[in-house]
Amino acid sequence: MANSLISRSENYSQWYNDLVVKADLAENSAVRGCMVIKPYGYAIWEKIQSELDRRFKETGHVNAYFPLFIPKSFLSKEAEHFEGFAKECAVVTHHRLKTDPNGNGLIVDPDAKLEEELIVRPTSETIIWNTYKNWIHSYRDLPLLINQWANVVRWEMRTRLFLRTSEFLWQEGHTAHATEKEAIEEAQKILQLYTDFTEQFMSIPVIKGVKSANERFAGAVETFCIEAMMQDGKALQMGTSHFLGQNFAKAFDVTFVDNNNQLQYVWATSWGVSTRLMGALIMTHSDDNGLVLPPNLAPFQVIIVPIYKNEKQLADISFVADKIMADLKKAGISVKYDNDDTKKPGWKFADYELKGVPVRIAIGPRDLENETAEIARRDTLSKETIPMRNITRYVHELMKLIQNNIYEKALSFRNKNTFRLNKWSDFIEVLDNSGGFISAHWDGTPETEEKIKEETKATIRCIPFDSVEEEGKCIYSGRPSTRRVLFARSY
Amino acid sequence: MANSLISRSENYSQWYNDLVVKADLAENSAVRGCMVIKPYGYAIWEKIQSELDRRFKETGHVNAYFPLFIPKSFLSKEAEHFEGFAKECAVVTHHRLKTDPNGNGLIVDPDAKLEEELIVRPTSETIIWNTYKNWIHSYRDLPLLINQWANVVRWEMRTRLFLRTSEFLWQEGHTAHATEKEAIEEAQKILQLYTDFTEQFMSIPVIKGVKSANERFAGAVETFCIEAMMQDGKALQMGTSHFLGQNFAKAFDVTFVDNNNQLQYVWATSWGVSTRLMGALIMTHSDDNGLVLPPNLAPFQVIIVPIYKNEKQLADISFVADKIMADLKKAGISVKYDNDDTKKPGWKFADYELKGVPVRIAIGPRDLENETAEIARRDTLSKETIPMRNITRYVHELMKLIQNNIYEKALSFRNKNTFRLNKWSDFIEVLDNSGGFISAHWDGTPETEEKIKEETKATIRCIPFDSVEEEGKCIYSGRPSTRRVLFARSY
Repeated sequence: MANSLISRSENYSQWYNDLVVKADLAENSAVRGCMVIKPYGYAIWEKIQSELDRRFKETGHVNAYFPLFIPKSFLSKEAEHFEGFAKECAVVTHHRLKTDPNGNGLIVDPDAKLEEELIVRPTSETIIWNTYKNWIHSYRDLPLLINQWANVVRWEMRTRLFLRTSEFLWQEGHTAHATEKEAIEEAQKILQLYTDFTEQFMSIPVIKGVKSANERFAGAVETFCIEAMMQDGKALQMGTSHFLGQNFAKAFDVTFVDNNNQLQYVWATSWGVSTRLMGALIMTHSDDNGLVLPPNLAPFQVIIVPIYKNEKQLADISFVADKIMADLKKAGISVKYDNDDTKKPGWKFADYELKGVPVRIAIGPRDLENETAEIARRDTLSKETIPMRNITRYVHELMKLIQNNIYEKALSFRNKNTFRLNKWSDFIEVLDNSGGFISAHWDGTPETEEKIKEETKATIRCIPFDSVEEEGKCIYSGRPSTRRVLFARSY
Repeated sequence: MANSLISRSENYSQWYNDLVVKADLAENSAVRGCMVIKPYGYAIWEKIQSELDRRFKETGHVNAYFPLFIPKSFLSKEAEHFEGFAKECAVVTHHRLKTDPNGNGLIVDPDAKLEEELIVRPTSETIIWNTYKNWIHSYRDLPLLINQWANVVRWEMRTRLFLRTSEFLWQEGHTAHATEKEAIEEAQKILQLYTDFTEQFMSIPVIKGVKSANERFAGAVETFCIEAMMQDGKALQMGTSHFLGQNFAKAFDVTFVDNNNQLQYVWATSWGVSTRLMGALIMTHSDDNGLVLPPNLAPFQVIIVPIYKNEKQLADISFVADKIMADLKKAGISVKYDNDDTKKPGWKFADYELKGVPVRIAIGPRDLENETAEIARRDTLSKETIPMRNITRYVHELMKLIQNNIYEKALSFRNKNTFRLNKWSDFIEVLDNSGGFISAHWDGTPETEEKIKEETKATIRCIPFDSVEEEGKCIYSGRPSTRRVLFARSY
């Protein structure tokens, strides 16, 4: 079978790369590090977008659009922010091409050099806070709760489809507040929104926490994050929500008159999730047969495949399939009927497994006689024969079961691969053998974190919100520590 | 009143610019030629997007996403296409900034020069056809019906909010077909889709036709278009749909094996509408008091303003307003209640007029006594007092009436300002005095078209589909002509 995948145990990395391409989700483009998101992959992204957008609006946020380009000088106004992004940005220097008079084809027209170079946005804090300056004057103008759906560019040297690409799609929220308290609450509210979305909608359990200084967003006071475990035991950061303090307000001189008539700098947050979520979705649930999609994100949730030997049989099956489709659609379930005569049922079965369609209904002549259908679950690969009249109810129930089952499966995998360790030798052994999350004491210094990273490639994924105070000794330095943090190798 | 506009008759151009900013639709950014689309303006664009997207999907199209960047060499593969876009494109030459060792701040790192420069897409035919090459092998792979929602950049020297900006948002459809006939049908089907959308949804009447060679898209065999008349008599191109023949298939070597086992080049279309539609929307319907929005595109369709002298009155009015809101929402009508105590009713009335909210309901103490409310229409500025119990039905009816009325108004304006002319002196007189569309004979040569443009700034907007064959003489050259074409000055 042409589309078969290498197994996860044999080569996890290649399994992922092949799956993304073979399941028609995305592929590399002719432009270094930039991907093409194919229709099937984009349909999943649209579902992610639409549900997140609904939740943002429900919590009082509105959408807007800011320029793709950022003047070079803006980037340097916030020193840490500049350090974080200057080394990986696409720079526009000219605004015209021309035909080389010396016959060397197409060249950049030297007469069309820009006075100031433009950066393709790696993130939009600078251009947005430069705009907010004109929008905010009084406490009455606050809060501003704005989100943007956009493409951004970070010039990555080593790229992987969805996980790390030079251009990616994302949403970035940028809010402005009158008080520190309100800004911190906003950043945490969004982290909870992200948590609910990934757990309920993507069936991916996450750990909420705060980043260490080393891993903080360039320009943030605190970075809150959610982290998920992939099937190879590595962590993947699903989303971040930053409390920016007054850093950008100061850099762009954004002040307001408060209700005591005092001039104050504005408090800020920013937060985002990106097409990286597609990578997490793929790596959390899929198996050696291909994608496994939560019903909430499947472009179509049910595939019906007819099994027939002649035209007459196909016509009879199609008649029944039409009725089933109508009933399923009425119940809000999306369904496709594949009567393509050029492909065999076995080929179709494998192809829809590869594409992660949650439920497959197969109908053959025997089923017509018995008024039954064979229903297969993608998540468990189990099959059952069900009376025709019960199909809609059964499938409707399955949608919830599958959505929940793959969440529980991922949670149990994470629990099984999370280790509470106290000895450095165990730390190294776990990383080198099983992989996974390690809950361990840390002395709180960037130096220790840096050394652990150098020696093991593991970093502090977060200081979990639910990490309790507890006396202990740093797993690396032996110095005193008051709480455990979460270590892992990560994407 | 701070927000008052200059009148259209006094200065149409300034009226437009001021309206866009004062109605909170968009503003210029710190980046030359790039705009910020503000939340109120973006909410309208989202409604345009969502309805178009629904119609694209209904007709079998799917969405995908292709890279922002295009390798320089791609642009030159189709000669006309290159001529059309090379002179106005943003060029990325480097991928890193650094701090100048000589202390001149932030500079482009000369060590980070790209081997091949990248163009920020002005349109995506080249990168997409380079991708289609790998997707299309057999007639079974066709048709491909793909759309993309994206930002594009064309380095315009003279920009105006929404009408002509260096970066704009749009959708671009790119389809691939096995036969010429099917591709032409697709291009025309989309033109009809655009027509139905602009007329039914935006209440803007359009004229469908085909472009002359001079006005054709760079790389197209035929460009179909829809043209609308603005209130100053100028034309605005609302959307284009191109039959590309085999030009891009040949440039990127995209072939397929047909059902006779013959190798053939693929036939193509591309088509798009952009945030320019926002400019058309504003200029078609609005008046000296501000925006006039068709109910289908209004971020909220009804505003309720309480008129009160004390807290008790406000509480009583709010009680009634809550009920009205609940009923309107149940009827699918979006509504906002403005009980902001820091603004006077008169200020609010003017502000919601400026923002084009289709219907305003004002409720005062007298209304409570009489169980009535005052309902004002934005399009006609007329008011009526309506029994409370009839409000939902009345407003529901108004939505359709307003949607239809502004369409009829625009159509009647266009009819009144379209002139069937046979004499060159009349041609000049109309353009210099009233402005408008001119239906006139043309000898079919690019030279004549060019001369007319030089002398009058008018161009051929299109050869209308409904232009009948008729013997005549070219209005400029006097040479024989077989049909009238549509001339106008344009945006």
